[in-house]
Amino acid sequence: MSVAAEFEAANQKYAASFAKGDLPLPPGRKVAVVACMDARLDPAKVLGLEEGDAHVIRNAGGRTIEALRSIVISQQLLGTREIAIVHHTDCGMLTFSDEDLRAKVRRELAEDVDHFAFLPFTDLKASVQDDIQILKKSPLVLDVPITGYIYDVKTGKIDKV
Amino acid sequence: MSVAAEFEAANQKYAASFAKGDLPLPPGRKVAVVACMDARLDPAKVLGLEEGDAHVIRNAGGRTIEALRSIVISQQLLGTREIAIVHHTDCGMLTFSDEDLRAKVRRELAEDVDHFAFLPFTDLKASVQDDIQILKKSPLVLDVPITGYIYDVKTGKIDKV
Repeated sequence: MSVAAEFEAANQKYAASFAKGDLPLPPGRKVAVVACMDARLDPAKVLGLEEGDAHVIRNAGGRTIEALRSIVISQQLLGTREIAIVHHTDCGMLTFSDEDLRAKVRRELAEDVDHFAFLPFTDLKASVQDDIQILKKSPLVLDVPITGYIYDVKTGKIDKV
Repeated sequence: MSVAAEFEAANQKYAASFAKGDLPLPPGRKVAVVACMDARLDPAKVLGLEEGDAHVIRNAGGRTIEALRSIVISQQLLGTREIAIVHHTDCGMLTFSDEDLRAKVRRELAEDVDHFAFLPFTDLKASVQDDIQILKKSPLVLDVPITGYIYDVKTGKIDKV
């Protein structure tokens, strides 16, 4: 069975007891979360989010520069007024350099991605600090509270940076 | 109380009963999900994902062109071999045009974002089809199964496109 078929089967169960069909479009808790795509990190469980609470933006590393389009939409059109950033221990982004991945793509796919910034990092705490500053310095982002966390995949705990 | 403080309180509860501290970095079900950031959509609940199962990439609209960096990392470094795309009914991306939002940002923030593509759409089904094709045609994406869904925020059901 493909994973898609498993998703469809799981969704039938979810929909069977679904009782949240009248939630409004704007996030109820007026917050946007930017988190890594990592499989071990479930932002809703880790932060206590229910359906309707928060925008959740995720990408490799939880990098905010790539989240800028979504954050402008979140703030300007849907009223969020706080941002939380979640990076995590044992992140894949700590394991390679742009040069490594560019070479691998050239080798495996015979494609030139030398123009691609894959946004890896070597210092986890600095990556959160950098990502906070990118938003704080952007003229496209409102002056709202921004909090950065490191999620520990071994303990389930978030640690404020 | 700021939402961040609420997140920290909620996380203490999650961590107190956390028992998934030894999951491997690569996603166990070898799948990457690309979904909208919408607050009403919880991909883990909707698709039956547990911690460790899948990469989850989210942005405004669930647009795959912006997910490309993350997908290359997911496939080339972390072994995923299937992709699922989830857009949804009543999406904010159906409610504005690039011209609208560029004008609003100029008005509210006095900033020029005429160079920004905010990636809105006017046809939900076509947005999923377009986003499947972007990945299928990209030389940077492996030839893997790609399934697109529309999630209905009123019923909790996903509908395959």
